Amino acid sequence: MARRCVSLITDFGLAGPFAGAMKGTILRINPEVNVVDVTHSITPGDILEAAFVLSCSFRFFPDRTIHVVVVDPKVGSQRRALLVSIENHFFLAPDNGVLSYILTREEVYGIFSLTEEHFFQKTLSSTFHGRDVFAPVAGWLSKGVESAQFGEPVTDPLVLDIPKPQEVRPKAWKGSILYVDTFGNLITNFTPEHIPLDEQGYPAVAKVRHLHGEIVKTRRYFAESADKEPFLMLGSSGYYEIAINNGSAAMELGLKAGSEIALLQR
Amino acid sequence: MARRCVSLITDFGLAGPFAGAMKGTILRINPEVNVVDVTHSITPGDILEAAFVLSCSFRFFPDRTIHVVVVDPKVGSQRRALLVSIENHFFLAPDNGVLSYILTREEVYGIFSLTEEHFFQKTLSSTFHGRDVFAPVAGWLSKGVESAQFGEPVTDPLVLDIPKPQEVRPKAWKGSILYVDTFGNLITNFTPEHIPLDEQGYPAVAKVRHLHGEIVKTRRYFAESADKEPFLMLGSSGYYEIAINNGSAAMELGLKAGSEIALLQR
Amino acid sequence: MARRCVSLITDFGLAGPFAGAMKGTILRINPEVNVVDVTHSITPGDILEAAFVLSCSFRFFPDRTIHVVVVDPKVGSQRRALLVSIENHFFLAPDNGVLSYILTREEVYGIFSLTEEHFFQKTLSSTFHGRDVFAPVAGWLSKGVESAQFGEPVTDPLVLDIPKPQEVRPKAWKGSILYVDTFGNLITNFTPEHIPLDEQGYPAVAKVRHLHGEIVKTRRYFAESADKEPFLMLGSSGYYEIAINNGSAAMELGLKAGSEIALLQR
Repeated sequence: MARRCVSLITDFGLAGPFAGAMKGTILRINPEVNVVDVTHSITPGDILEAAFVLSCSFRFFPDRTIHVVVVDPKVGSQRRALLVSIENHFFLAPDNGVLSYILTREEVYGIFSLTEEHFFQKTLSSTFHGRDVFAPVAGWLSKGVESAQFGEPVTDPLVLDIPKPQEVRPKAWKGSILYVDTFGNLITNFTPEHIPLDEQGYPAVAKVRHLHGEIVKTRRYFAESADKEPFLMLGSSGYYEIAINNGSAAMELGLKAGSEIALLQR
Repeated sequence: MARRCVSLITDFGLAGPFAGAMKGTILRINPEVNVVDVTHSITPGDILEAAFVLSCSFRFFPDRTIHVVVVDPKVGSQRRALLVSIENHFFLAPDNGVLSYILTREEVYGIFSLTEEHFFQKTLSSTFHGRDVFAPVAGWLSKGVESAQFGEPVTDPLVLDIPKPQEVRPKAWKGSILYVDTFGNLITNFTPEHIPLDEQGYPAVAKVRHLHGEIVKTRRYFAESADKEPFLMLGSSGYYEIAINNGSAAMELGLKAGSEIALLQR
Repeated sequence: MARRCVSLITDFGLAGPFAGAMKGTILRINPEVNVVDVTHSITPGDILEAAFVLSCSFRFFPDRTIHVVVVDPKVGSQRRALLVSIENHFFLAPDNGVLSYILTREEVYGIFSLTEEHFFQKTLSSTFHGRDVFAPVAGWLSKGVESAQFGEPVTDPLVLDIPKPQEVRPKAWKGSILYVDTFGNLITNFTPEHIPLDEQGYPAVAKVRHLHGEIVKTRRYFAESADKEPFLMLGSSGYYEIAINNGSAAMELGLKAGSEIALLQR
């Protein structure tokens, strides 16, 4: 049987013992699993950022991968810990909305609350469920324990409002920035469903308005732009992005995750 | 036989070839091993920080894991390179005190000086023993080479003074901050052995004095605090921590690793 | 058969979904491979930096490792994607000079342009060939697909000018800084081929001139220097380095990658 994968998304940072303790815990239970760091550098407590990063990465992992997402500002409180399964993937995360993209866009097979404590770390802390709950459950799940063994079914997981574009008049949408990537590119929540690409791959008839101006230049890839003018482009996650070649659109335009923008047909 | 683990703690940073060259070296000798990054972001040269991170992570790894800790400001000098074994773990590190928690708190089975050069990288640099000494020895050790094969027994490893609380009068201790985590939480060297938790899990009868004030608020987990007042809480490593919910206690209070504090019974 | 390795060098940073999506893609095709992060923290778009980091790390990996180097500012344009093989290693990278050290210093067995799209991600983006081209090709290559299956041979890969020392008069060379490591050490392009080490291991008869002064102190390792004066030393990659013990030579001397220096025999 193929080696299974556990992917990790956390806000623990890279400097301390936290990510290592999680990885050790998983491998202690199942040394045959591939533990893969997606990122431990989510902005501390930023649930929507983690939700977005998960939505852009999980699909590329092998079938039956277990995705562990620990951005968990309410750890220790009564918030539930969830196991969610879809056709080819499992997710372990606090019930705080970090799985909102999964719960609203994928066909969900099962949702369980992690309550069976014999699967947890023997000494359970109240501040580090990444190590004491999610990691050991990931280990046991990867060994073939059935989802229903970990706790009771859940019917009302917390789902956050992922900002969706609103058509305010024909061919004009209000939307927002979902994410700023490490290069400073601004990923919007607009897609070719709103204004399609032309045959050459440009969002040619689109323009974007933002707080400080308007973007009419369109490109297919970064290096197609020779200057420092921002442009609109279809990004690798399927969303339109605002970018500057060899520069940070976020810095230049003063926009960030959550900033409101508009998409208009020219 | 289960795949073995090699865990890595270094101050090499993440930008250069150093961590990669170590990992490649280990896998070149034993491609069946799981090499796990705990952290490469120890403050350069900070031996006590690395010692603390090791003490909080090693126990969660599988039995027979080899923990490689390379914070080694005296690399190239006559300082020895050590292999230390305890019941279920092996440690490879320079003889500079980075194993102080292990050497003083665990039952040590054996300590050897790494001198058998045929286990080293063929070309031995004088500035990168992580790659040229510790990584290849980790590889061979993971393949089953006996500890005593790597060099002579050592009886006098360097042990640094890990700050321990001193009882200055009944129910009053002088102590210090051991570590500041990535969220800015201040991990003290006080534990429930000094002042116990009450039945609900609060260090209720404790208060902490620091250079700039006093902390009397106690909590069990972060989100139990609704404001920005610092509180005392039992942390996930078994020490009392000073924390601020959604904030950095280190920044707010102006304290850092090594800062003196006092724990008092109310 | 031994598990194969895929090593990763990118400028994607650690905060987003990018590195994770690449790793997932590789493991989806070949779950038996060891995927090893060398670094994802190359300065964005800095091809020479990535080329240098690769040159210092690849040799330590197991035979038949596949090194994936994605610093790719022209992704989406007509720049080719290459597979290069040498005796014991494979390289996958854009044809932008990032393999210049390999192409000029190693015996090259084969160079192919990656054009066979059935090996790519099914939906091919124009901005993320790390995930959509290089990662899947790495996966298939690790499964044993022959190099020639991925595309046509290439005879004219782009090779950048790696700065080489020029002898301006007997025993006097003009050279430059190749790389600044995470500690601030300045790796020069001078080696013992220019001015040899003495029997004790010091570059004793050498001195270095830079924009702001001269360095005459020589050392064999960092801790041999007790003060904050910069010194010249043979570094772990085989180049002479300018370093300051417990300090950043780059900051102190105001030098960086590309800065010109001179090496002179005293």
